[in-house]
Amino acid sequence: MTTIQNPQGSFELDATIQALQAIVGPERVSATESDRDQHARDQSAHPGRLPDVVVWPQTTAEVSAIMRHANQVGAPVVAWGAGTSIEGNPIPVHGGIVLDFRDMNQILKVHQNDFQVTVQPGILYKDMNESLARYGLFFAPDPGANASIGGMVANNAAGIRTVKYGATKDNVLALEVVLANGEVIRTGSRSIKQSAGYDLTHLFIGSEGTLGIVTEATLKLDPLPEHFSAVTAAFPTVNDAAEAVFGIIGSGLGPAALELLDTKTVTLMNTEEGIDLVIAPNLFMEFNGASEAALNEELSMVENICNESACRHFQAGVGREARNRLWQARHRAFEVMVRHHPNQAYLLTDAAVPISQYPVLVAATDDIMEELNLRGYILGHAGDGNMHTAIFFPADDAEARAKTEQINSHIVQQSLALGGTSTGEHGVGLGKQKYMEQEHGPIAMKLMRDLKALLDPNGILNPGKVLGQT
Amino acid sequence: MTTIQNPQGSFELDATIQALQAIVGPERVSATESDRDQHARDQSAHPGRLPDVVVWPQTTAEVSAIMRHANQVGAPVVAWGAGTSIEGNPIPVHGGIVLDFRDMNQILKVHQNDFQVTVQPGILYKDMNESLARYGLFFAPDPGANASIGGMVANNAAGIRTVKYGATKDNVLALEVVLANGEVIRTGSRSIKQSAGYDLTHLFIGSEGTLGIVTEATLKLDPLPEHFSAVTAAFPTVNDAAEAVFGIIGSGLGPAALELLDTKTVTLMNTEEGIDLVIAPNLFMEFNGASEAALNEELSMVENICNESACRHFQAGVGREARNRLWQARHRAFEVMVRHHPNQAYLLTDAAVPISQYPVLVAATDDIMEELNLRGYILGHAGDGNMHTAIFFPADDAEARAKTEQINSHIVQQSLALGGTSTGEHGVGLGKQKYMEQEHGPIAMKLMRDLKALLDPNGILNPGKVLGQT
Repeated sequence: MTTIQNPQGSFELDATIQALQAIVGPERVSATESDRDQHARDQSAHPGRLPDVVVWPQTTAEVSAIMRHANQVGAPVVAWGAGTSIEGNPIPVHGGIVLDFRDMNQILKVHQNDFQVTVQPGILYKDMNESLARYGLFFAPDPGANASIGGMVANNAAGIRTVKYGATKDNVLALEVVLANGEVIRTGSRSIKQSAGYDLTHLFIGSEGTLGIVTEATLKLDPLPEHFSAVTAAFPTVNDAAEAVFGIIGSGLGPAALELLDTKTVTLMNTEEGIDLVIAPNLFMEFNGASEAALNEELSMVENICNESACRHFQAGVGREARNRLWQARHRAFEVMVRHHPNQAYLLTDAAVPISQYPVLVAATDDIMEELNLRGYILGHAGDGNMHTAIFFPADDAEARAKTEQINSHIVQQSLALGGTSTGEHGVGLGKQKYMEQEHGPIAMKLMRDLKALLDPNGILNPGKVLGQT
Repeated sequence: MTTIQNPQGSFELDATIQALQAIVGPERVSATESDRDQHARDQSAHPGRLPDVVVWPQTTAEVSAIMRHANQVGAPVVAWGAGTSIEGNPIPVHGGIVLDFRDMNQILKVHQNDFQVTVQPGILYKDMNESLARYGLFFAPDPGANASIGGMVANNAAGIRTVKYGATKDNVLALEVVLANGEVIRTGSRSIKQSAGYDLTHLFIGSEGTLGIVTEATLKLDPLPEHFSAVTAAFPTVNDAAEAVFGIIGSGLGPAALELLDTKTVTLMNTEEGIDLVIAPNLFMEFNGASEAALNEELSMVENICNESACRHFQAGVGREARNRLWQARHRAFEVMVRHHPNQAYLLTDAAVPISQYPVLVAATDDIMEELNLRGYILGHAGDGNMHTAIFFPADDAEARAKTEQINSHIVQQSLALGGTSTGEHGVGLGKQKYMEQEHGPIAMKLMRDLKALLDPNGILNPGKVLGQT
């Protein structure tokens, strides 16, 4: 008998494995080192932790039965999608059961005429959009990585297309959720408009698996744009680029993407991805028009705004192939950085501010990196005020680690002071917990903890996340 | 001493009046018959109920102190905006204190460069938008009535512009909320993207004052459109019109408004509002284009789709003045109906379905009214699948009342069967409570009740609403 101790209490691992096997059959339960190791860490630099056992459910009924058991014995349960998150969100820091949704990856129904789709949580974002392309539709929130839809819902993922189409939270109509005790609820409906009682859908979106387990989601889709143009614009300084971002958004133009990349990022992408950007801070943009004429009109307004911010090189009308290469390079930027700094530790920031404050945040970030002489990459979904920095340092360099943490903290403080948030899209996970009380205040934090206690009285759902423990 | 009995317990009215006077001063507390009567009913046909006392707070601190007192003594508290709701949402069915936000009606800050505004809850929608017009901005969810922003947030109001811009819930970034015990929290931030913990903002939006009292809201605004065109299109039958709605939305066109009016409504509007629509089911539409050229292209597509649904009369390019008259008539439709049926009782339905099912819902509604020989008006925000019917009947005609209730129930059942909701925008209030358990299921309803008990353990916040009591 192996007794597993954790802050929630203790449970007998052998009995739990037997119970899981009784629910899903022996083939879909594993406690091997290698299976556990594959569910020990996400793509963040947070240290991994092995779960005690991994299970691959295939139905909501199985998930329900697993939760019922886990709740009875007090075993932690962490839902697992693609493991692509970058704030430690699914790391099973208290061990227990990982529920891997690999086998619940089906499109259940395409509601083509309503621009909606109902899917299981394990389906991957890119796979789903590939299937939806034949209907001329796509799910717009693009986290870059090939995340699972369950993970995107849990983390309220967002990304390159959010400036136009919103974040995940803006594009979910209905959920099926298994509660901590195994009970199953359905939230929302397929009606775009809903005013029937409390908004349970948004209670679960972004709760990072700490309030319930999503087993089905109905998503809003958008028609694939017919006319689009990618644009690149290079600026003398990152602040000039940030000013142009503010100008473009403030003018009421509606870019479908508006990304900032600093010189360091551009240089790396040119080298590693074989693209040919002017070596300078760049904006990557995309515009969709109702027609070519409308598009061209919009592009000439964008060019004027960029020129007012001292734009050095403006290229619109990038062809489809070059456009796809640019976006692919942008999607792979983080991966390329990691590869370019082998064996280094890193930290990713995720502050987001009102767009008028974006230049202020970028300038402050530039300054603090200068001051501490630790140059990270600055990039981000500028159009919605979201700025990332990626800072690499030798894992055993305590001074660099401390400086990096100082930069992170400085950026968060700046962001909060500017009316923004510590995390625009990566979620709280492990790394942002220490800022939660400052961001929300003690009373709102108590309310969040009370909600957690109400929905998960035994504290088994993704314990050790979100709620402000540091 | 007057002891007020209610389901929450009992409280001493004189002591409460004294306590309220101590908080806000004697001038802003009233227990006169006439002040109480002005806070006894909204614009629905639900029977009114006098509150015991009315208070007009001027600051969040006053609201907090009032809540602290009410929570201690167990007095019901109902927040009051403009009283324009139409499902009985603010009727103080258990008496107690009405908190009238008339004096908290300021724009606190226009964040012009961020397209945001921070306001107090008592400001009226139309007044606010009038002030914002000088910045070229407006708050898009348009409930028709001159509702208060606090009421719009509480009821997740929506309306004519929702098809393009979303409902209130899609346009609120941050709230200040006074909890039942008087504690004050701030939710959200001014960042468009937010992933920092549980979504408390959406927990309060649409909770109809049963979970907390909103004392400040930061709203997303949109630029006033430069190019627009109003369109009217007449069809042989209401079903043809509904098919055209589905065609327009399904084609990916983005109307800024798309309203359906049946023949009965059109006839009334022509007579009472001096407009000149073809006597037939009509669609009212508005399109905004990036340019005149883009707009014209869109309009010709719309015309084609309408013609495929046997459109008899299509008029685009309605001038600004005629357009304003049309929208004014549409805004006043309900008011005009009430005036046109003096001394009659009425019932308004508010079902909403996925757009593909809109023709089905409209046909079923047409049929049931035919079958029961009780002809109501059919109109609604067709573009987002929301259909209203207004049925008038002699207040003392028990048979007509029963038939009306049968029609309402039939429409709700149809809507739920079609994947929709019992209420798209009016909220649950009093009239939709009986459908809540059917719509959400017993476990989700229990979760809603548990949330209520957590946020409002003494049950003082707008008691008797939302949670499924019939």
